[in-house]
Amino acid sequence: MGEKVNAVEPYELSLHEAAEQIREKKLSPVELTESVLGRIKAVDERVGAFVTVMQDQAVRAARTAEKEIADGAYRGPLHGVCIAVKDLLDTAGVLTTSSSRTRADHVPDTDAAVVEHLEAAGAVIIGKTHTHEFAYGVITPTTRNPWNLDHIPGGSSGGSGAAVAARMCQGAIGSDTGGSVRIPSAVCGTVGLKPTYGRVSRRGTTSLSWSLDHLGPLTNSVHDAALMMDAIAGYDRADPATRDVPVPRHTEQLTAGVENLVFGVPRNYFFDQLDPEVESAVRAAIEQLAGLGAELREVEIPYPDLYMPAEFGILVPEASAYHQEALRKVGDLYEDDVRVLLEVGELMLATDYIKAQRMRTLIQQGWRDMFDGLDAVLAPTLPAVAARVGELAFTWPDGEEEPVINSYVRTSAPGNLTGLPALSVPCGFSAGGMPIGLQIIGRPFAEPTVLRVGAAYEAATDWSDRRPAGLS
Amino acid sequence: MGEKVNAVEPYELSLHEAAEQIREKKLSPVELTESVLGRIKAVDERVGAFVTVMQDQAVRAARTAEKEIADGAYRGPLHGVCIAVKDLLDTAGVLTTSSSRTRADHVPDTDAAVVEHLEAAGAVIIGKTHTHEFAYGVITPTTRNPWNLDHIPGGSSGGSGAAVAARMCQGAIGSDTGGSVRIPSAVCGTVGLKPTYGRVSRRGTTSLSWSLDHLGPLTNSVHDAALMMDAIAGYDRADPATRDVPVPRHTEQLTAGVENLVFGVPRNYFFDQLDPEVESAVRAAIEQLAGLGAELREVEIPYPDLYMPAEFGILVPEASAYHQEALRKVGDLYEDDVRVLLEVGELMLATDYIKAQRMRTLIQQGWRDMFDGLDAVLAPTLPAVAARVGELAFTWPDGEEEPVINSYVRTSAPGNLTGLPALSVPCGFSAGGMPIGLQIIGRPFAEPTVLRVGAAYEAATDWSDRRPAGLS
Repeated sequence: MGEKVNAVEPYELSLHEAAEQIREKKLSPVELTESVLGRIKAVDERVGAFVTVMQDQAVRAARTAEKEIADGAYRGPLHGVCIAVKDLLDTAGVLTTSSSRTRADHVPDTDAAVVEHLEAAGAVIIGKTHTHEFAYGVITPTTRNPWNLDHIPGGSSGGSGAAVAARMCQGAIGSDTGGSVRIPSAVCGTVGLKPTYGRVSRRGTTSLSWSLDHLGPLTNSVHDAALMMDAIAGYDRADPATRDVPVPRHTEQLTAGVENLVFGVPRNYFFDQLDPEVESAVRAAIEQLAGLGAELREVEIPYPDLYMPAEFGILVPEASAYHQEALRKVGDLYEDDVRVLLEVGELMLATDYIKAQRMRTLIQQGWRDMFDGLDAVLAPTLPAVAARVGELAFTWPDGEEEPVINSYVRTSAPGNLTGLPALSVPCGFSAGGMPIGLQIIGRPFAEPTVLRVGAAYEAATDWSDRRPAGLS
Repeated sequence: MGEKVNAVEPYELSLHEAAEQIREKKLSPVELTESVLGRIKAVDERVGAFVTVMQDQAVRAARTAEKEIADGAYRGPLHGVCIAVKDLLDTAGVLTTSSSRTRADHVPDTDAAVVEHLEAAGAVIIGKTHTHEFAYGVITPTTRNPWNLDHIPGGSSGGSGAAVAARMCQGAIGSDTGGSVRIPSAVCGTVGLKPTYGRVSRRGTTSLSWSLDHLGPLTNSVHDAALMMDAIAGYDRADPATRDVPVPRHTEQLTAGVENLVFGVPRNYFFDQLDPEVESAVRAAIEQLAGLGAELREVEIPYPDLYMPAEFGILVPEASAYHQEALRKVGDLYEDDVRVLLEVGELMLATDYIKAQRMRTLIQQGWRDMFDGLDAVLAPTLPAVAARVGELAFTWPDGEEEPVINSYVRTSAPGNLTGLPALSVPCGFSAGGMPIGLQIIGRPFAEPTVLRVGAAYEAATDWSDRRPAGLS
């Protein structure tokens, strides 16, 4: 179940704790970075979260931060804290592989927009984390779950989830096309936010599916996610999906509580097939929020049969369009699972893709109507905890089997198809000790509201303070 | 060349002239409607603009309008004037065929959003105008050009263009997916506005290509187009493409002139291949606007090679997705040209469609950059005047041949792909007496600006006052 402990080593600090100590000059960025590098050295051989540990660059960045802060030029809460970045995002002069043999030697010239923003905020980029190859899967086979190394860390941002959970960074960036921030967050017991579509620029990030891709933070607390959002959110002319909507202070409502907020609780879809342990943890979390003063309303999720065909009908051919040329040139360097999906996408007809996009429009209209009067919708992030390594399907209480990827994407895809912000926060553990996630889905650009709900829940519980014990 | 005449019969009045007389009770809606119906009776056998003349409904609506106005309940400039609607738009209880044998008996239960708006403004819907079948072509084979019956009226809104030019209504609604408002406007010598994508609801309009379809007015003056836009523009929850952007008064800037406005004049693309008579008329119009105080700047149209593949790469499979089911059931009822295109679209791959959409994104970014500091871009609406009936291709001065459809779509597609508002105003005649159009392309939702430019040009010239002489 994990243990509640007080941080003794700097690497154990959450982002806002480390930031506070750095601001007060009780902790130096160099001290923190060296502690984090030590932690990586101690545990990452077992976890496998990192493709590249940016040891030298990180120490240099930490020294710069230390000097700036000593000189009175404190930049804010990210200054001098260690952030890991999914290896899908370009880092100038640093290997960026997308965890693919096709990009084994790829070193970009420029930084992704999000990396630029993090560096401008003074963050120390500690390394590049593993993804399921090109973000096209939910397993991340290179990496293990810190809560139990026999289990997967989820994906595609599995390296980011594992790195945060194992305290190998104060926060990490992931991408989410069909759940790839929320899946590793839920199964690794971290907080994870998929922001509104268009809230965070994807410039310099390898695309999986341009109309479904989102970037967002994975952290050890809701507060930390809010601090990262403050740094990375905003319009970018170079990403045509971004919207020129004012960026709020994401921390502003964190202590506002949930009194008089109205939450939708789905009577269908999200609770149709799921692990009873997950269901009871999520329902308990929802009741706890009601106990904090929120009103619950049962809602009917619209078009339950359209999510999976729309999600895969869009994602699969978009991925193939992106990879088409590389598939011709270096097709044999792709992993089999990804190559097969890319080949399937090349056979799909335009009319089927267009119908999937039209399903998506129906779904969006349905959610808009369903959201009438609601502040958020509460649901399980996933129907199950982390699969065991090699486990291909879950078996539900009625005996039905469902592939792991379908199970995880099923409850995640609504967030991608609607583009609505969706936060996963830890809400308990299975009997086997694996984390469970509560999903909080909000209105467009209402990140402050979903963070507020997550923070209220987090403050009333101590799930986010638990640590995987097995690694220490 | 047409003759400049003073209106003697009510049907000859432009929309704003008729509106003025109705408001002043010098003309009754019934008198106007009967005059218009008489005009249709006199000339439409030769022109073929109408699928359905709504004689009884129109007279009833005119009587209602007359009574309302007599009772002091004047609704505004559209009250009691006669408007024709492309047969692609649903009219409750009235045959709506999309000029297709597949819908020979189709009578919808409800009105299209635009028809609702027109009726709410008090307009008399006079009839349904022919379209190239399902708006999928630029010929409109049912209909002839009022300026010379041996020539086509353009398309797909050919019936609307011919009806306006032949004074069989005060204004008409067309749809524009690859030029289908601007093409008939240019070749029939009317004003035509394709508004910004998302400015006018398409609810109740048969789709050709949902991501390229726009609805807009065809009229005999810029002022008239502005009055129609005031009635039809606005957000509609039921059309997910519409944007909740405030609707301006479109007439407000009509007399503001062009002094100190900055116009881009393309050095490429629009002037690459065109009829020298068209080129000289358009260049003269541009110089005339400069003489009115505007500044001209040469601009480079971005990505000139991408417009045609993007336009057809999006339009063709979207049309096939829409028609797929009907094609199975009643495929033999489609005209050959349309059926073949629909069948081609069924073979297109999703990856090709996705690449076309990505080209479109590049084009949009390129236009955004090009528009820096500009108020509008000026160009020929089309590279040629109306083709003769049966003419399949134009021959350019260098001896190159280009199919009529490609020629017309080539200069129209930028407006559809960018979604920018684009106005066609008459700017001269060929030696053979066929009208030529000037295209004014503006910034997103800057309809008042493009109308202002068009009105300034119109006020300085008398092209819009010319009438086809051959029909009287």
